[in-house]
Amino acid sequence: MSTQEFAEFDPKGMPFRRLGASGLRVPVFSLGGWLTYGQTVKGDPVKEIMKIAFENGINMFDTAEGYAAGNSEIEMGRVIRELNLRRSDLIITTKIYFGTRTGPNDKGLSRKHIIEGTKASLERLGLDYVDVIFAHRPDSTVPMEEVVRAFNWVIEKGWAFYWATSEWSALEIEEAHHVATRLNLIPPIAEQCQHHMLHRERPEKEYAPLYKRYDLGTTVWSALASGLLTGKYNDGVPADSRFATHKDFFKDTLDSLTKEEGLRKLEKVKALTALAEKELGCTTSQLALAWVAKFPTTSTVILGATKPEQLLENIKALEVLPKLTPEVLQKIESILDNKPAPVSTWGRPALDKYGKQ
Amino acid sequence: MSTQEFAEFDPKGMPFRRLGASGLRVPVFSLGGWLTYGQTVKGDPVKEIMKIAFENGINMFDTAEGYAAGNSEIEMGRVIRELNLRRSDLIITTKIYFGTRTGPNDKGLSRKHIIEGTKASLERLGLDYVDVIFAHRPDSTVPMEEVVRAFNWVIEKGWAFYWATSEWSALEIEEAHHVATRLNLIPPIAEQCQHHMLHRERPEKEYAPLYKRYDLGTTVWSALASGLLTGKYNDGVPADSRFATHKDFFKDTLDSLTKEEGLRKLEKVKALTALAEKELGCTTSQLALAWVAKFPTTSTVILGATKPEQLLENIKALEVLPKLTPEVLQKIESILDNKPAPVSTWGRPALDKYGKQ
Amino acid sequence: MSTQEFAEFDPKGMPFRRLGASGLRVPVFSLGGWLTYGQTVKGDPVKEIMKIAFENGINMFDTAEGYAAGNSEIEMGRVIRELNLRRSDLIITTKIYFGTRTGPNDKGLSRKHIIEGTKASLERLGLDYVDVIFAHRPDSTVPMEEVVRAFNWVIEKGWAFYWATSEWSALEIEEAHHVATRLNLIPPIAEQCQHHMLHRERPEKEYAPLYKRYDLGTTVWSALASGLLTGKYNDGVPADSRFATHKDFFKDTLDSLTKEEGLRKLEKVKALTALAEKELGCTTSQLALAWVAKFPTTSTVILGATKPEQLLENIKALEVLPKLTPEVLQKIESILDNKPAPVSTWGRPALDKYGKQ
Amino acid sequence: MSTQEFAEFDPKGMPFRRLGASGLRVPVFSLGGWLTYGQTVKGDPVKEIMKIAFENGINMFDTAEGYAAGNSEIEMGRVIRELNLRRSDLIITTKIYFGTRTGPNDKGLSRKHIIEGTKASLERLGLDYVDVIFAHRPDSTVPMEEVVRAFNWVIEKGWAFYWATSEWSALEIEEAHHVATRLNLIPPIAEQCQHHMLHRERPEKEYAPLYKRYDLGTTVWSALASGLLTGKYNDGVPADSRFATHKDFFKDTLDSLTKEEGLRKLEKVKALTALAEKELGCTTSQLALAWVAKFPTTSTVILGATKPEQLLENIKALEVLPKLTPEVLQKIESILDNKPAPVSTWGRPALDKYGKQ
Repeated sequence: MSTQEFAEFDPKGMPFRRLGASGLRVPVFSLGGWLTYGQTVKGDPVKEIMKIAFENGINMFDTAEGYAAGNSEIEMGRVIRELNLRRSDLIITTKIYFGTRTGPNDKGLSRKHIIEGTKASLERLGLDYVDVIFAHRPDSTVPMEEVVRAFNWVIEKGWAFYWATSEWSALEIEEAHHVATRLNLIPPIAEQCQHHMLHRERPEKEYAPLYKRYDLGTTVWSALASGLLTGKYNDGVPADSRFATHKDFFKDTLDSLTKEEGLRKLEKVKALTALAEKELGCTTSQLALAWVAKFPTTSTVILGATKPEQLLENIKALEVLPKLTPEVLQKIESILDNKPAPVSTWGRPALDKYGKQ
Repeated sequence: MSTQEFAEFDPKGMPFRRLGASGLRVPVFSLGGWLTYGQTVKGDPVKEIMKIAFENGINMFDTAEGYAAGNSEIEMGRVIRELNLRRSDLIITTKIYFGTRTGPNDKGLSRKHIIEGTKASLERLGLDYVDVIFAHRPDSTVPMEEVVRAFNWVIEKGWAFYWATSEWSALEIEEAHHVATRLNLIPPIAEQCQHHMLHRERPEKEYAPLYKRYDLGTTVWSALASGLLTGKYNDGVPADSRFATHKDFFKDTLDSLTKEEGLRKLEKVKALTALAEKELGCTTSQLALAWVAKFPTTSTVILGATKPEQLLENIKALEVLPKLTPEVLQKIESILDNKPAPVSTWGRPALDKYGKQ
Repeated sequence: MSTQEFAEFDPKGMPFRRLGASGLRVPVFSLGGWLTYGQTVKGDPVKEIMKIAFENGINMFDTAEGYAAGNSEIEMGRVIRELNLRRSDLIITTKIYFGTRTGPNDKGLSRKHIIEGTKASLERLGLDYVDVIFAHRPDSTVPMEEVVRAFNWVIEKGWAFYWATSEWSALEIEEAHHVATRLNLIPPIAEQCQHHMLHRERPEKEYAPLYKRYDLGTTVWSALASGLLTGKYNDGVPADSRFATHKDFFKDTLDSLTKEEGLRKLEKVKALTALAEKELGCTTSQLALAWVAKFPTTSTVILGATKPEQLLENIKALEVLPKLTPEVLQKIESILDNKPAPVSTWGRPALDKYGKQ
Repeated sequence: MSTQEFAEFDPKGMPFRRLGASGLRVPVFSLGGWLTYGQTVKGDPVKEIMKIAFENGINMFDTAEGYAAGNSEIEMGRVIRELNLRRSDLIITTKIYFGTRTGPNDKGLSRKHIIEGTKASLERLGLDYVDVIFAHRPDSTVPMEEVVRAFNWVIEKGWAFYWATSEWSALEIEEAHHVATRLNLIPPIAEQCQHHMLHRERPEKEYAPLYKRYDLGTTVWSALASGLLTGKYNDGVPADSRFATHKDFFKDTLDSLTKEEGLRKLEKVKALTALAEKELGCTTSQLALAWVAKFPTTSTVILGATKPEQLLENIKALEVLPKLTPEVLQKIESILDNKPAPVSTWGRPALDKYGKQ
């Protein structure tokens, strides 16, 4: 393939941020292939969405070995080739843990699975390397030294530029840094965590020391709370919604919505919808996405999309970002009423608010 | 002397900040003994000023072996005893470099002078230890390893809790960290630097990577530009001013005031005086002090004072701090027109302004 | 291709120096491809100049990914093949930073761009490795650990033997050493810096501690101050000169020549021309080149050339080197009147001039 | 004792140099107590010589536990007190190895003897610390780690600021550095070695890599070759000379002077005497002292003296230093004909003589 055949990448105003303590620049919004590509969505629709994404400044595509048992990677790899996207224009991330099979060594973070799994992922993607390889979950049955050494091996091999974690506790990330310091190895640079208006304790409080100490970045998934923050469940569960079509997967969520705690959540979403539509002139989704993107610790918010229109709609959250003034953010806090309490200093007087905290 | 005899320390609303990457809390304003105590000011006036300072929340006193050839330390030590100040209530800092004599090993940062000098300073102060011992200048003729080892020795000996630098370049501070990292020694926690509205390049630009990387703190001296920012030279040099009474020392400054650059500076000070008096209801000095204190990287601003009234007047700069809104700060920038240019990224696109820089 | 086909390299009296703290020997004069090869100069002229260079002892060729958007590398690579130059006879250096495209990850010193960029450079050059890979600029947006690790990866991969910096501050070079010490990685061995009679502060003063501490080498560019030190602008800007043909690029330089500072510079160049022609029997260019080459810290002076005659003329600067006696150097200092002031020792007495400084 | 009682130190034009890789400044000429103080010279003459030395810029006094079985230290300590010399004005060095007694643990570099010996030396000197503690000889029966650890313990205890070696081979000094690097301990900063016109191989060739790598300093003893280079043996051994009065000690030397090699040496000394007296207007001793002082690697030349006049005479060697032009040095080389051969590069071409070697 000659050079001129490549589609030209144009960020089109998409802002880029550093991915944690790294020099990699990621778009504020990226595209994820969870539960969709390779499973419910295959073939041309995937190509169409990825094309629209790329044309709108989204050049970061996130997948995992465990998404649709490897088919998400296969679909994404196919589209990258078909669209003639230049490798250096792209940020491709995948994740290792869940594997594609069920044998005793087909999952987890053993050196065996990290290496065998990454190799298989690259083959499915048809790539020489990904930009970031994630540990999709922590594995308490493997010594941390083995995990850190194996991801470093993958990087030294040239199969990835960086490694990161997903759904690890702050304690587990700290352990990984401890091992990396002791052995002079590369630590993880980011955490792919759940962060949305109704799930704040871990990303906003538990990780706080890591943001400060390691400049940890986050690649946020579930910014819309599986759809709850789109507002579409405000008046019940529509028949064509994800909660309805994936009843088993979302059973607990669905059940909870009928209980006291769930009803309180719905009330909050309704108030947010009112704020979005009446005061900010945007959708509930756009407000929810912009709110997460507003955190300086958020590196990128991973969008899911089954239709191009949905993606284009959500990207418009960028326009909401400057509308989130201190006053508006305060209104949101009043609605949510779930801001994590600050860490106690056990009576030591507060520091001067103008100085460095 | 029994416990109850000690004067009780009451911060009286003085805000405290961390001194760089340390747990030590220092008052936003502290008191320095440069050119004054032990030389032009001796005996009771020193006691009176230090008493007023302590009663108004200033419990940090800065001196140096080189101030008045050791007499500043002698005077401060005397007053601390006479006022019955409790050691743990105080933050005492001194500095080693200039010595009190002229022999080939009486100055600088050799292990010999750091140790012999600190010992002599403690004897003059009549104290077992200072809180922070500063390297008063860099010494390019001594290997950095010797300097870092010697200050660590002083700390291990119990003669100081922390060490810091004064008027070192960012390169020299980075070297000290390099050595400390390599040898597992304690790095310097702060820099005593000149920082005022007419001297910004080093504290605001050169040190920027150190603030980020090491959480470096600053103990600012000369926040009033040797008096220029008090506004008292706006209409010529008064006979009783420091510039007039220390003509030789300030010769260069005085000469420059009559040249184009100096005249431009005076114009700026006049505009600041107008802003302070007409819009903020404060003195030029208070504005200049609050402006430096506003930087989150400023740990403490060292005040000089020859009269108690002067000190009380300057402390009121605390009330000006909340008045320095983004709009007022912008007005000041327009007057000063000397904001250090950002570091070039050589064509790499800017990062998203909402993300972590 | 059989061994005997290679052109034989004969240093022809060209002196060789160590490249900083390395065992690599570089010719005192080398050839650079900036602004010329691949852009204004293409095809046979490049081949002719490189042939003449090689036949006159210059076996070191410097280029960069950012020169003519990759075309400088393409031209150089082509000529090396066409001239049948033996790889081990050559010292090929290229530089990474500016890239050849404009995407968010196409420039700078992220691991992604260092690795993707070096790979692309080697492909354009048609080589398996370069001798030295330079970081063409510092990148304040990337953690230094990532930069040092990535260049080490490139070396471990076999894509380069050494890495170096270009236009980095002493602070940034020290940071790189700090990281390399901490992680047991390879530090940069040299700095490609601007150094000429009218630009001395950084190479002669700022880098001084690095020459001493790390035996840093320099590969000097712009020894002729973009042509100013050839003397050809002594009587105005000739129509066919680089300043005239690249008006936009040299706008600032051109403008400055008409101002007081620029006119002072021209006066100095005129005096140098007189000294060169009347006392040393050489051209202004030869004097300027020999003057830079005379610094023991200079590893190589990179020559630019658009015509073979120009190159042959400039190499003759070698004959001027022994004429730069202490007396002549003193005359030059009198003309230039810009010798960087020594670092202050703040009153510490001077060391014995016969001892080691 | 109050401050004003101290004799004031005035360097009186004595040049000071760094002692190797340290910040300690030592006078080019210092005074040693070998074989004299405490033994042949006691009481008032010692005081008289040290007083004259101090008044003429020599504030560095070298002794050893083994000199006159401890009596040299006792005499020096007594004089320091009697002359009211201020401790920080002085550089006091002593050496551990030979001890003062003959038991199995009374000598050498065991941790036991280094610590017990240093303690005893300080007691004899009546000092809290010396500036430099030397290992007077290497001890091949003690692991180097024990030696380095013990001297570091002495420094950490505050009993010395630096440690150094005496008559160690380059290999042994390198071993000490290796251990210090591995354990993050302080390496030796200098070597007290024999260096004179007739003994050059070790100081000029063997130590060369250490001068470069560690900035090793030397405190030279025997610069006059036990008197041979004073010229007083040019016409036989005078009855009152050291060779005559210490016949047993100098037996080998005396014997050698009658053999072919010894006669050749005497011829050289005679030629040097002619050069000194006729061309340089100085004594043979002054020439020999200046010649050693001229090496930039020489930190200090230790003078011996039994009479004040002798000391004053030798200090005048300072005036000979500037007379040692390249031409005069070349004449001396012709007379000596013993310049150590350069290290072979086994056919690798020489480096450019103007570049850094």
